[in-house]
Amino acid sequence: MASDDRVRVTYRIAAADVGEARARALGIALEQTVEVPGDVVPEGYIRDEIVGRVETLAPAGPGAFETAISYSPDSVGHEVLQFINVVFGNSSLQAGIKVVAVEPGPEIARRLPGPRFGVAGLRARAGRPEGGLIAPVIKPQGSSATELAAIAGRSVAGGADIIKEDHGLANQPMAPFEARVAAVADAVGEANAKHGALALYIANVTGAGGDPIAQAHRAKELGASGVLLMPGLLGFGPVAALAGDPGFDLPIMTHPAFTGGFVQSPEAGIAHGVLYGTLQRIAGADISVFPNVGGRFGFSAEECQAIAEACRDPDGFGPPILPSPGGGMSVERAPDMAAMYGPDVVYLLGGSLLRHREKIGEAVRAMREALEAAGGGR
Amino acid sequence: MASDDRVRVTYRIAAADVGEARARALGIALEQTVEVPGDVVPEGYIRDEIVGRVETLAPAGPGAFETAISYSPDSVGHEVLQFINVVFGNSSLQAGIKVVAVEPGPEIARRLPGPRFGVAGLRARAGRPEGGLIAPVIKPQGSSATELAAIAGRSVAGGADIIKEDHGLANQPMAPFEARVAAVADAVGEANAKHGALALYIANVTGAGGDPIAQAHRAKELGASGVLLMPGLLGFGPVAALAGDPGFDLPIMTHPAFTGGFVQSPEAGIAHGVLYGTLQRIAGADISVFPNVGGRFGFSAEECQAIAEACRDPDGFGPPILPSPGGGMSVERAPDMAAMYGPDVVYLLGGSLLRHREKIGEAVRAMREALEAAGGGR
Repeated sequence: MASDDRVRVTYRIAAADVGEARARALGIALEQTVEVPGDVVPEGYIRDEIVGRVETLAPAGPGAFETAISYSPDSVGHEVLQFINVVFGNSSLQAGIKVVAVEPGPEIARRLPGPRFGVAGLRARAGRPEGGLIAPVIKPQGSSATELAAIAGRSVAGGADIIKEDHGLANQPMAPFEARVAAVADAVGEANAKHGALALYIANVTGAGGDPIAQAHRAKELGASGVLLMPGLLGFGPVAALAGDPGFDLPIMTHPAFTGGFVQSPEAGIAHGVLYGTLQRIAGADISVFPNVGGRFGFSAEECQAIAEACRDPDGFGPPILPSPGGGMSVERAPDMAAMYGPDVVYLLGGSLLRHREKIGEAVRAMREALEAAGGGR
Repeated sequence: MASDDRVRVTYRIAAADVGEARARALGIALEQTVEVPGDVVPEGYIRDEIVGRVETLAPAGPGAFETAISYSPDSVGHEVLQFINVVFGNSSLQAGIKVVAVEPGPEIARRLPGPRFGVAGLRARAGRPEGGLIAPVIKPQGSSATELAAIAGRSVAGGADIIKEDHGLANQPMAPFEARVAAVADAVGEANAKHGALALYIANVTGAGGDPIAQAHRAKELGASGVLLMPGLLGFGPVAALAGDPGFDLPIMTHPAFTGGFVQSPEAGIAHGVLYGTLQRIAGADISVFPNVGGRFGFSAEECQAIAEACRDPDGFGPPILPSPGGGMSVERAPDMAAMYGPDVVYLLGGSLLRHREKIGEAVRAMREALEAAGGGR
């Protein structure tokens, strides 16, 4: 395997001095590959290729260093799960190590499918060639399939681009998966036909019974035009499997549920842009949901910007994808949001939309107008 | 759904005063269920049953409160994934919230399979009715299937109870899954026959190609006597699916890779005992691996004790399971470890074992003798 084909991960590590930093970097290089002490590593191929290589090490502020470690694609094989495992499986358990950059390299780019649609493909499917996309979230949990379908239909009538299911809609008795997806798909289809729209319906797939791939295909059969997957609860495997499945051919939106542990400490975990941008893209997501600044979550404007940039970086993995900030969007904030995110973005409209009840379509339309007036609608 | 059937989760929340604490608790109760503002929650069933209920709220030290919130089993349905989602899906993304206890309640106990073997069942399969179990880990990544099989065979000859595959062995070219599992299973089977042993071989299942359930069944066909699953990378779904699959009938060991984010902050994430004990047991693991005190990871003796207690709590979910501390075990430390963990434990023996090369069996035997001498072997 040529050296420039290696995966490159940059870690920020806590260390008092360069000696400790070097020891920690070498420790990561062993931990993430052979997981044996350095003196036990067999000579030859394993020592020369498999063990991670500390490529760079430099101070990065008080008590901190940055180190780039490279890994052989042979450590990964062809699975995105094992890719993530090499990047940060065991080292995530150690204090004072933060993943700040991940460059998969050309060989991994050949092995993993990456996003199938990206920004351009998603826009084509949704019939929205320019401007921010609007995605009302259908909920709350506890509603019947009929009630959720009604909200979906009204949202399409109001000009929604994407109908996203709440990530808390799984396979509960109030609106079981089969009945819910069929009802919502029908409602979206009818509203699309009536209004000459192409709104996508993204169904939440949790893999009831253990097989998310089969459930995603079933969602497609029932009429969904995309799926929502939660890598924190399902792993990244199903994202890549569906992104590379020629028989699937639908966009994938990823949701950040149960990933919050990785963004709670400035010294540990994974940088926001890497977790919700780079890794989602490597896995094959077309749209990545994350908590927006100013909503119920504590993400800063800078962190949200880093996510959006990682999603859309022209030099990233596969085609640029759409960042999808959730929460904190309103008609009043539309100018600020449009200025912050630009046109290639999917705005989730959550629970506050439900205040409008039967007039939810008008609320969606008002958001579209506010966005267009702000210049972020096109 | 009767009130006493509800799921009960205790969160530690950061708050300056009781007013802020109450607001945060109510916020969690909404966030983890309906995910809409309180004034938008529909009257009736959704407001009365589905929205989380703040059951208790009490001070818990400076700037902190503990709150118990209960959830309807209807929010969960029958999926362990959605159970975890209700416990801590979105709230994991908010600062200053830590899960410190999870009580699934009797209805969830009826819906999820729980551990199939537990301590007693695992001991019966491994032929070790009492005393600590010894589990050498076969590695390093980069070795051929033949090399790994040789280590496995020697370990069985030395008296190992379990041959555990390294979690970094996936489906790489050096030792592809099929060839590796077949070779190691054969080596373990031959050594068992030769030495009259019942050592279990636990194969690492990563779901290459997107289907961990099918791959686990394939491991069984190839001769594995148990599987290793990484819930941080695969989700908890495959654990429960296999634990409840009558046609599978093999023990499940879970590994903590890519869960470290949840244990990096004292104010956020999930308490060690809950993450590596309670939740593994609810998912259906029979053995839960975690980083041992004194090894390469920073877990304290108290945190490791909490994990072991949660695994073995007689009042916990399903049968008690085996905690499996990894790292930090040696002949010298055997007395301390035996005193700390007692007899119901699986000691992983990792990379340092490889120093003994062809004499690895003797090193395993020395560990057994040290453990028995310490009174922890029986």
